Amino acid sequence: MIVRPQQHWLRLIFVWHGSVLSKIFTRLFLNFLLSIAVVLTLPWYSSLGFKLTVAPFSILGVAIAIFLGFRNNACYSRYVEARQLWGQLMIASRSLFREVKNTLPDDPHLGEFVRLQIAFAHCLRMTLRRQPQAERLSHYLSAEHLRAAMDSQSPANRILLIMGEWLAVHRREGQLSDILFHSLNNRLNDMSVVLAGCERIANTPVPFAYTLILHRTVYLFCIMLPFALVGDLHYMTPFISVLVSYTFIALDALAEELEEPFGIENNDLPLDAICNAMEIDLLQMNDESEIPARLLPDRRYQLT
Amino acid sequence: MIVRPQQHWLRLIFVWHGSVLSKIFTRLFLNFLLSIAVVLTLPWYSSLGFKLTVAPFSILGVAIAIFLGFRNNACYSRYVEARQLWGQLMIASRSLFREVKNTLPDDPHLGEFVRLQIAFAHCLRMTLRRQPQAERLSHYLSAEHLRAAMDSQSPANRILLIMGEWLAVHRREGQLSDILFHSLNNRLNDMSVVLAGCERIANTPVPFAYTLILHRTVYLFCIMLPFALVGDLHYMTPFISVLVSYTFIALDALAEELEEPFGIENNDLPLDAICNAMEIDLLQMNDESEIPARLLPDRRYQLT
Amino acid sequence: MIVRPQQHWLRLIFVWHGSVLSKIFTRLFLNFLLSIAVVLTLPWYSSLGFKLTVAPFSILGVAIAIFLGFRNNACYSRYVEARQLWGQLMIASRSLFREVKNTLPDDPHLGEFVRLQIAFAHCLRMTLRRQPQAERLSHYLSAEHLRAAMDSQSPANRILLIMGEWLAVHRREGQLSDILFHSLNNRLNDMSVVLAGCERIANTPVPFAYTLILHRTVYLFCIMLPFALVGDLHYMTPFISVLVSYTFIALDALAEELEEPFGIENNDLPLDAICNAMEIDLLQMNDESEIPARLLPDRRYQLT
Amino acid sequence: MIVRPQQHWLRLIFVWHGSVLSKIFTRLFLNFLLSIAVVLTLPWYSSLGFKLTVAPFSILGVAIAIFLGFRNNACYSRYVEARQLWGQLMIASRSLFREVKNTLPDDPHLGEFVRLQIAFAHCLRMTLRRQPQAERLSHYLSAEHLRAAMDSQSPANRILLIMGEWLAVHRREGQLSDILFHSLNNRLNDMSVVLAGCERIANTPVPFAYTLILHRTVYLFCIMLPFALVGDLHYMTPFISVLVSYTFIALDALAEELEEPFGIENNDLPLDAICNAMEIDLLQMNDESEIPARLLPDRRYQLT
Amino acid sequence: MIVRPQQHWLRLIFVWHGSVLSKIFTRLFLNFLLSIAVVLTLPWYSSLGFKLTVAPFSILGVAIAIFLGFRNNACYSRYVEARQLWGQLMIASRSLFREVKNTLPDDPHLGEFVRLQIAFAHCLRMTLRRQPQAERLSHYLSAEHLRAAMDSQSPANRILLIMGEWLAVHRREGQLSDILFHSLNNRLNDMSVVLAGCERIANTPVPFAYTLILHRTVYLFCIMLPFALVGDLHYMTPFISVLVSYTFIALDALAEELEEPFGIENNDLPLDAICNAMEIDLLQMNDESEIPARLLPDRRYQLT
Repeated sequence: MIVRPQQHWLRLIFVWHGSVLSKIFTRLFLNFLLSIAVVLTLPWYSSLGFKLTVAPFSILGVAIAIFLGFRNNACYSRYVEARQLWGQLMIASRSLFREVKNTLPDDPHLGEFVRLQIAFAHCLRMTLRRQPQAERLSHYLSAEHLRAAMDSQSPANRILLIMGEWLAVHRREGQLSDILFHSLNNRLNDMSVVLAGCERIANTPVPFAYTLILHRTVYLFCIMLPFALVGDLHYMTPFISVLVSYTFIALDALAEELEEPFGIENNDLPLDAICNAMEIDLLQMNDESEIPARLLPDRRYQLT
Repeated sequence: MIVRPQQHWLRLIFVWHGSVLSKIFTRLFLNFLLSIAVVLTLPWYSSLGFKLTVAPFSILGVAIAIFLGFRNNACYSRYVEARQLWGQLMIASRSLFREVKNTLPDDPHLGEFVRLQIAFAHCLRMTLRRQPQAERLSHYLSAEHLRAAMDSQSPANRILLIMGEWLAVHRREGQLSDILFHSLNNRLNDMSVVLAGCERIANTPVPFAYTLILHRTVYLFCIMLPFALVGDLHYMTPFISVLVSYTFIALDALAEELEEPFGIENNDLPLDAICNAMEIDLLQMNDESEIPARLLPDRRYQLT
Repeated sequence: MIVRPQQHWLRLIFVWHGSVLSKIFTRLFLNFLLSIAVVLTLPWYSSLGFKLTVAPFSILGVAIAIFLGFRNNACYSRYVEARQLWGQLMIASRSLFREVKNTLPDDPHLGEFVRLQIAFAHCLRMTLRRQPQAERLSHYLSAEHLRAAMDSQSPANRILLIMGEWLAVHRREGQLSDILFHSLNNRLNDMSVVLAGCERIANTPVPFAYTLILHRTVYLFCIMLPFALVGDLHYMTPFISVLVSYTFIALDALAEELEEPFGIENNDLPLDAICNAMEIDLLQMNDESEIPARLLPDRRYQLT
Repeated sequence: MIVRPQQHWLRLIFVWHGSVLSKIFTRLFLNFLLSIAVVLTLPWYSSLGFKLTVAPFSILGVAIAIFLGFRNNACYSRYVEARQLWGQLMIASRSLFREVKNTLPDDPHLGEFVRLQIAFAHCLRMTLRRQPQAERLSHYLSAEHLRAAMDSQSPANRILLIMGEWLAVHRREGQLSDILFHSLNNRLNDMSVVLAGCERIANTPVPFAYTLILHRTVYLFCIMLPFALVGDLHYMTPFISVLVSYTFIALDALAEELEEPFGIENNDLPLDAICNAMEIDLLQMNDESEIPARLLPDRRYQLT
Repeated sequence: MIVRPQQHWLRLIFVWHGSVLSKIFTRLFLNFLLSIAVVLTLPWYSSLGFKLTVAPFSILGVAIAIFLGFRNNACYSRYVEARQLWGQLMIASRSLFREVKNTLPDDPHLGEFVRLQIAFAHCLRMTLRRQPQAERLSHYLSAEHLRAAMDSQSPANRILLIMGEWLAVHRREGQLSDILFHSLNNRLNDMSVVLAGCERIANTPVPFAYTLILHRTVYLFCIMLPFALVGDLHYMTPFISVLVSYTFIALDALAEELEEPFGIENNDLPLDAICNAMEIDLLQMNDESEIPARLLPDRRYQLT
């Protein structure tokens, strides 16, 4: 994610890093070259009776803009929902540990429990990004728990089961009444909601045909646009054509980035930073002394 | 559902499988033929004083695009809600079994309970797809339960009742306190929410008149468009006419597919894969050894 | 509600029943006649300096389309919410009876309770449709309860109170612990949510001024459209004018139908069928033998 | 609120009362006069080289329509949310009293409690409409409670506190177990949600700059429109200009009314009627004999 | 936040303070100067064959308006959600204290607890606005609690932990049953939801690329617009160009303000006033005598 301080409106126009411009530069450049070719060959192909006007492109442009707006909305909703799920994980983690600590203030194994919670967050993050997990999780989990988690199709779900067992042991030993066990269990269920929600977003893309239809119509529109503009604009065609193409192609490309919010591209969620903040919070709540440093945006305002 | 890896923007333009293009090809081809006929017969029917211009089609095009955008939204919401309901089933299933296993760790009938849960998921899937269920459910249910379920108007609801009875027996035998019985019951209620939500989506289509009005206006628009374009574009008419028609008809056809998200078309939900993942998860949580293989997309990236 | 099987795209264009076409046919026909008059009298009134062009209608058409889209959205939301409320009633009814049956399996009065639940659904349906209730409810309620319900401003609410009393008696007799009484009471509260939600939709229309403003602008737009089109299209004016008018007027008329989802028009909710399904479900859950037949769409695919 | 029976589409065009037309008539009339002046002075100012065309107004018109649609949406959401909050108050009130009556059926002070509930509704209504409350509330509250409420910044919140104390006394006396006290308390919390939600809507307007920007652009657009239209339409300019202005100004004015849903204008919520219905319901649930009459719309279909 | 009384529509057009006009005046003025330069140099650059027409700008204008509408929606949603979170804090604070006071009416430390609640609100406010907190919080917290909060990464979360401990002590001493402790704990969890929700909004901006793409296209559009208009409008170009630019740039600037709702700009949330109201409410509920004065809008209708 890009975390820039607010800037003067004029400077924003010249920002390169963090825009999708780097990604679509080739396509815009090809559009520019095509437009020049269209201008130069105009006399030849108009002599063949080949002619386009702006009017049908106006109809098409509005329709594509509306449908692109719809797809943007759908992709942005996924991004927002993904962020909300991680916010809910923060809420559930803090609430769960607060309740545990208030209810069992003198339990000698609180450090173990807090590490199970931290492991859950990192495990979910690494699952979503398809990163290898064993090494990192070994910092937080006992060997036995680590093996159980790694053997499972869904390691994060297994960690939840282990946390539930931790609480159930306290219930069986009489330290937790049924009411409080039920209450703590609800926090685990909240985490289960986050887990399955993230899995859902990661596994179910926006219907592929949307992407396809819009991709095609946007590119065909941009390819044919110079032919339509050249009659009116002549030498100005390449500039206007690139400006219009930029508007449409940039939003198409951004929607594609937002569709998969768990990646590590410029406009994806900073899961590393969220996990880091969660880890600091939980360790501080347990009054531990060794707290990791806080992750900050790098020189290019990038936070992963 | 189509699960494609992200691809180069240029290759996407030429993808055939998974688009709705295969479905609407005939219509676009008819539109192309009509456009050619319009170009060829232009001298004849203009001599009759028959004339169309682009301007009124511009008004109509914008209006149809806005209303089509609205219908797309309505159909996509159904798709998203259906997916969320299955996500909630995943959540409720895992949470229910985690609570049961943590509360009754040594119960000898956990295997029976986990199979009731798996049967519920498969039963719901097969009900929504109107597939015969008895054979599949017999893998998970005892003969008596299977008969009770099959005799019911809503077999999935009957399975819920059986699960509730399983828990109630433990309560009556004193193994579950009222608090924990209440908590587990809430998980069953969550499943009831999923069940009735899916039934609602399956039984209540988007109001038929929406489909009808848009269908008609889209097709009339596409049929008359070549007459309007031919004055300006002449020989280019068939190409632009097909491009505009593609944009409108493809989105109309996609909305139709998304409207019924439980089918087995390209853009429908992969219920088989979801049930399979749920089955693996639950069996692993019960530490069973015979776990079914995971379903993966086929050669054409299709996951049912 | 119209429940049609999916059909070939070509056949859909000619469907008459279930569209709003029957409702707006007169208006479209008047528009057609007006357009013909406009074409015929063109020489006369243009000699008076009376002239309209398409350009301002283009601005107006877009604005009306956007606002109509907004109103459609508002009305469709009411329809969707109404359907969801009835879905929640299904959920609450099944969950309530499942909990009651699991908790009090041998109670001799379960049949009475299940009939109270069924009476609630029918009573709500008939209240929303302003139908006389006493006769139907007498099948399910004792004379005393029926009188109490009929004497109340909100009979459905009174039935809820009676159900609460049924449960409270069991609590006072020691058959229900406070926890389970609390849990069952929450299901009654869910039904109360449905009741008040439906009352809200029935009593609070979309602000009347929306209806009025859009009605007026849509009709004025359609009346003046032929004058604007005739300059360009001449003899084609009536056809294009009716096509544009159809798009706008049909959506306006549909929004009006959806605004009141509890009626018995083509695009309203099939409350009869929902109540029927609920009744069958509940009676089967109580293992009763006399189950009413399932309601199916009639010959015209109509389900009330 | 206007509660009209459904009417013939033709009659709706001529409705005066309940539309915003009465409110914006002056503005439309000024627009009409301006348009006439523009037509008459056209020869003079065109000789000065002053000229406008429709094309830039087309861009502006679409943009304003989109932004106006957005603002309408925001204001309508406030209206809908306000109505939903009052619906939730209905739900919480009925559920709370049902639970109280079922749990404490023979308590001699139920009449006092039901009046506290009624007082809460009226107090909230009068707070939102900034009406004096003491006189009305004295019908329902004891002198001591009335004074406590009136001395508070938020009288409705104080009434909630008194209701909580009423329940707490019963708990301390052993008539309510902790579980049931907790359950009833949750209903009070639901009322607290309604209270703070209504305060939020009343105190936090849609950002003032939205209102301002749209106001300005709408009026500037309508003022300059006749200059742009006169070239094409000549004598027809005033009529078309007023029609376009009506569409934009009427929706702007309606959004303004909906923004403050708690007022007593034509399109505001009928809080009097809602409180009246709630009062009747609660008194009937307590089987009281003196029930106030039901409020109905007046001759002009107006319900306050 | 600007809190203006409703005003005559004519006066609104001339309001300066509270609009974003002060912020974008320079940009509009530059646009005006550029337009004049375009008009004056028209003969020179048209002789070079440099020519623009309105048609492509019409396509671009609609597309930008749609995408700007989308961004406005996204930013406004953040504003609304932020306001709702603070409303929920109000709800949770009142409910928590009501329950505490009703359950422990004679506890001598209620004053301490109410100050912990007030400290939480102020702490959250100052965290979101990145203001120094120690001085203000010292009015409400004991020295020990203050130090604990200040040493934490998230002081507000630490205050929640302290409140939980306050309740847990009462539970351990037998004054709170597990049920009531559980109920009060849920209110703390509600506060945790508000805390993490606000952190989420503050830390996760709308994807930077949206801001960038729209910024660029809006400004490029406004810069090139005069060249396109001058052909048709000549001397009127600067006026129309500024009007169109105002519509687009003002909404772009407003979206930027709303994106960060916790600031102290004209259109940001009045957190000071909300905290103040919460403080008064809680102190009055505890029947304290020293109540701070209520914050009111200043002379310019500004409430921070």
